[in-house]
Amino acid sequence: MIMEVVSNAGQMQEIVMGMRRQGLSIGLVPTMGYLHQGHLSLVRRARSECDRVVMSIFVNPLQFGPREDFAAYPRDPEHDLALARDEGVDYVFAPVKEDMYPKGFNTQVTVEGALTEKMCSRSRPGHFRGVTTVVMKLFQIVQPDRAYFGQKDAQQALVIRRMATDLNLPLEIVTCPIVRETDGLALSSRNAYLSSEERRVALVLPRSLEAGRDLIIKGERRVERVRDEITERLAAERAIKVDYVEVCDGQTLADLAELRGPVLLAAAVYVGRTRLIDNIYLEV
Amino acid sequence: MIMEVVSNAGQMQEIVMGMRRQGLSIGLVPTMGYLHQGHLSLVRRARSECDRVVMSIFVNPLQFGPREDFAAYPRDPEHDLALARDEGVDYVFAPVKEDMYPKGFNTQVTVEGALTEKMCSRSRPGHFRGVTTVVMKLFQIVQPDRAYFGQKDAQQALVIRRMATDLNLPLEIVTCPIVRETDGLALSSRNAYLSSEERRVALVLPRSLEAGRDLIIKGERRVERVRDEITERLAAERAIKVDYVEVCDGQTLADLAELRGPVLLAAAVYVGRTRLIDNIYLEV
Repeated sequence: MIMEVVSNAGQMQEIVMGMRRQGLSIGLVPTMGYLHQGHLSLVRRARSECDRVVMSIFVNPLQFGPREDFAAYPRDPEHDLALARDEGVDYVFAPVKEDMYPKGFNTQVTVEGALTEKMCSRSRPGHFRGVTTVVMKLFQIVQPDRAYFGQKDAQQALVIRRMATDLNLPLEIVTCPIVRETDGLALSSRNAYLSSEERRVALVLPRSLEAGRDLIIKGERRVERVRDEITERLAAERAIKVDYVEVCDGQTLADLAELRGPVLLAAAVYVGRTRLIDNIYLEV
Repeated sequence: MIMEVVSNAGQMQEIVMGMRRQGLSIGLVPTMGYLHQGHLSLVRRARSECDRVVMSIFVNPLQFGPREDFAAYPRDPEHDLALARDEGVDYVFAPVKEDMYPKGFNTQVTVEGALTEKMCSRSRPGHFRGVTTVVMKLFQIVQPDRAYFGQKDAQQALVIRRMATDLNLPLEIVTCPIVRETDGLALSSRNAYLSSEERRVALVLPRSLEAGRDLIIKGERRVERVRDEITERLAAERAIKVDYVEVCDGQTLADLAELRGPVLLAAAVYVGRTRLIDNIYLEV
């Protein structure tokens, strides 16, 4: 099958209707493009579970704050299409902004509560509202049986899962493991912003989270102790600025009295002007 | 076909999947029960356009304010089922509150802007957010090709249409004409609250809107003049209290400089403790 690129939402819906009539299952991999092995791991998982794979590529303005990097966000459509084709994507849905948010657009999907009150919500107000709104649109356009998200954006995956449950969406949310460079840095399109010196410094992020995890593995059950360990290791690297360090319930992001059950260790840091996030999920 | 009553959302989704696999089109008539001829006109329209008709019956707590009539809202499930059966409904989806809004539920769908800033939004803050959220859930559960709403709730129909457009919902919103008693009162489940004296007094609502419409038909193009006519006629009935009188764009509910294009004449009044709404839509 030759990969098809579709830019119009109505046309994508017609193609999807055709697939559904044929009884084919559909996997959706939503992306903002500038694809890396993390994205491609989602495609591979989708291909193994679905008859057809649709990848969306859309840098969603709604999820960027006014002072964030929407305009600068790295884009390379040609390379993305080549990678998608090589990986066996069937359809790339790549709409333009004006088609997704035409004049008069005025609807928002919002997840409230602990899931959107801490971590990335603090420094990125409105971010998850932009994510849930665009993802809801993509779900309605592509009507997937399964949609694939990366665990790198742990909070995003939980927020989308909450939305899907709350609104009875007839689909399965699949969260796939973080893909890392050999030295441990989590893959991210934003890594492209890093100078080689910053790239070296950025390693403190996965290393610090690993140190927190190792404490837990050795038996530490005090939340504060693990959080302090991560924070101190991050602080030791003078070239970064810590945005947040969170040690919380891995399902609800609620505060924990002690480390037990599903636990998420998550942090966001600025390396120069680049904001990076990473996390480790574990069952204690 | 024998009508089936389904109370579980997951079960309803399975039935719907079966219908879709058979290529059957689905019409949804969302109601809060206490059915009258207005609801049944929606069912007849749905039957004429769809292979299968699903009626939902759910008094949605989310769209009632804390001081409103959620607890008192009239209910008569047995009579509703008999009416639905007689009208040829195929499935009644009648969930319980705990199934629609389980512990942890935290997602909202919101339409913003002029559509939800005037008319019923003023005296019922949060009302339309409750409506769009439950309707989105019903759409995901029943996955209709067409969903049927009454023009009596003109603002609701426009808000839902906006949501469907904005979120690319793969379905058609069908708005059906207001059904009235022979004397002109619009059918409403809340008419059951009226004493016989209040029932008589309530007639001033359609009569006043008709007077406004007649002015336009005679050539009046000044918005204020028509609004004043309606307001004065309502005010002449001392036994009612006016909530709002609106003369505005019939598509966007925006203010109009003059009466031209699609125009909505709408009003809400309290007759005793009962809040009634009515409207007339016309192309000028």
